[in-house]
Amino acid sequence: METPRTIQWVGDIDGFVRLIDQTLLPTRLEYRDCRTVEEIWEAIKVLRVRGAPAIGVAAAMGVVVGMQKFDGRERGAFASRLKDVCAYLRTSRPTAVNLFWALDRMQGHVRGRAEQEAPAKLQRLLLEEALAIEAEDRRMCRAIGEAGAKLIAEGKGVLTHCNAGGLATADFGTALAPMFVAAERGVPFHVYVDETRPLLQGARLTAWELQQRQIPLTLICDNMAAQVMKEGRVQLVIVGADRIAANGDTANKIGTYGVAVLAQAHGIPFYVAAPSSTFDLSLATGDAIPIEQRASSEVTHGFGKQTAPDGIGVYNPAFDVTPARLIAGIITEKGLIQPVSEASIRQAIG
Amino acid sequence: METPRTIQWVGDIDGFVRLIDQTLLPTRLEYRDCRTVEEIWEAIKVLRVRGAPAIGVAAAMGVVVGMQKFDGRERGAFASRLKDVCAYLRTSRPTAVNLFWALDRMQGHVRGRAEQEAPAKLQRLLLEEALAIEAEDRRMCRAIGEAGAKLIAEGKGVLTHCNAGGLATADFGTALAPMFVAAERGVPFHVYVDETRPLLQGARLTAWELQQRQIPLTLICDNMAAQVMKEGRVQLVIVGADRIAANGDTANKIGTYGVAVLAQAHGIPFYVAAPSSTFDLSLATGDAIPIEQRASSEVTHGFGKQTAPDGIGVYNPAFDVTPARLIAGIITEKGLIQPVSEASIRQAIG
Repeated sequence: METPRTIQWVGDIDGFVRLIDQTLLPTRLEYRDCRTVEEIWEAIKVLRVRGAPAIGVAAAMGVVVGMQKFDGRERGAFASRLKDVCAYLRTSRPTAVNLFWALDRMQGHVRGRAEQEAPAKLQRLLLEEALAIEAEDRRMCRAIGEAGAKLIAEGKGVLTHCNAGGLATADFGTALAPMFVAAERGVPFHVYVDETRPLLQGARLTAWELQQRQIPLTLICDNMAAQVMKEGRVQLVIVGADRIAANGDTANKIGTYGVAVLAQAHGIPFYVAAPSSTFDLSLATGDAIPIEQRASSEVTHGFGKQTAPDGIGVYNPAFDVTPARLIAGIITEKGLIQPVSEASIRQAIG
Repeated sequence: METPRTIQWVGDIDGFVRLIDQTLLPTRLEYRDCRTVEEIWEAIKVLRVRGAPAIGVAAAMGVVVGMQKFDGRERGAFASRLKDVCAYLRTSRPTAVNLFWALDRMQGHVRGRAEQEAPAKLQRLLLEEALAIEAEDRRMCRAIGEAGAKLIAEGKGVLTHCNAGGLATADFGTALAPMFVAAERGVPFHVYVDETRPLLQGARLTAWELQQRQIPLTLICDNMAAQVMKEGRVQLVIVGADRIAANGDTANKIGTYGVAVLAQAHGIPFYVAAPSSTFDLSLATGDAIPIEQRASSEVTHGFGKQTAPDGIGVYNPAFDVTPARLIAGIITEKGLIQPVSEASIRQAIG
């Protein structure tokens, strides 16, 4: 029932990061060992590791890798190098709030001590903090699973978009965690998986994770979700989140907003599952969330084969923002936030 | 400004069908010559020729090809063979009402004469009727274009799904015809093209046709339509139809229904463009329209590359049905049917 570990630290202070190269799934399960900060940056950038929580863990471990060989002893040198490493890692995925959160936390953990302590001691502190972030992530996944499992009644159809599963975290996932907990409890249900163009994380990753855990699933193209809902096959939607504003507006993989509109039109409750670190209470609403635009080749050459004419215009936003009014509840490690409002969010998270 | 001819009859009574092999677009423009009814059947089946009107023309010409070498002179032999050829062609695409319509018309054209006339005379009649169907299709496309062009005001964004363009007909298309006429008149507008999984007719065919005619376009993945609407980029949706019931419920490429729901949620009028031959007034509502299920490999092995794990369940309906309540109007060669109701349809078509 266990899926392979998405990301882990191998060895002690001189160790390295081992992660599943998710660009090769579902046909090949291969690990990639990252021993330099550039390798971590590249792994985040090209989505070998993806999903907000896993990116946070990868970034934290990336800081360890980036600092583990540093032995400059001039006053301020360690702090200066650490700042550079974090600034560099920030550029790997400019919209992932967990990335910033993890990097801020790593910097904060040694702040004030960088002037007094030797590099070896500071490197030990950074490794401990990265491992703490990973351990918290694992506990967080389980807690989200517990909080959301009660939504999955016997025989229900659940639709999900993209991959917010174990491959998106250090352990159990966010949107998939309630399903994994329900399955552990023997609750029968069926999952409809949006393939999630352009990069097909649903087809490649979510379908693979559900299959690994023997949970019944049906893969659909994104444009079939409306029909599946119309046929009465879906009673619940659960998706992940990349970033949640103070009022509950949620940025997530492109297509999520459309699923939310369709769910509302069919009277199906739409839930977001995310750790509290995904909330950015400094953003009043989703209007303030920048939408990353990605390369047009992801759309025109999506399958290793050219599927559109040369030279045409392409729009390829990585994310969209689902307004809070379409969200029935947000499943967090601190419990279910329902109904979704600034007040209920600040009470649970603030 | 002219695109190559989608389908044509080459030569006289001993001629053959030449069609663009649409499975090779947009990277290769190649013609395929069909000299046997089996080749026509295969071309329809694997979507080398597709789109309701073009399938009708292909089937009519397929009847000519299937009968052109027949010289049996026993009483009833020609009619018997003709019946077999039509029954065979019917199985190539069991949901395309234009296919049945064209085959019925070809049979009807020689009915009653098959006992009196020599095969050569009957073969001539069949060719004339197939060419008449093609000519009517070309006139029909122009008339739909004229009827719909007025909907496209200056600077509007128009979204379309799948391909109901010239490649779907013998000439100007249905859903794209209003755009082609508006472009001929110098009206500036911009088209958002859903790529249309699983077979990507939007990316491969519609984008190619618009580019050929120098109409500005932006290609999007199907799951981006909601976001594009939310950003105010779209003021009008026009799609084609495979089959329209007496009340206006419309079967069209999977994903159309979802686009209609999204359009309504954003206050965007949603139009269907189709010739009157697409109406099936024997069907009271769309509930009676059978939904063809297609091979799961179209989803899991999109373009020669596996994008989902082996052994998972896949749902791959070819069509969905958009209820009439979501359709602002139906653009036909007989004019614009608006509002859509059984009464207005019977008045225009019946």
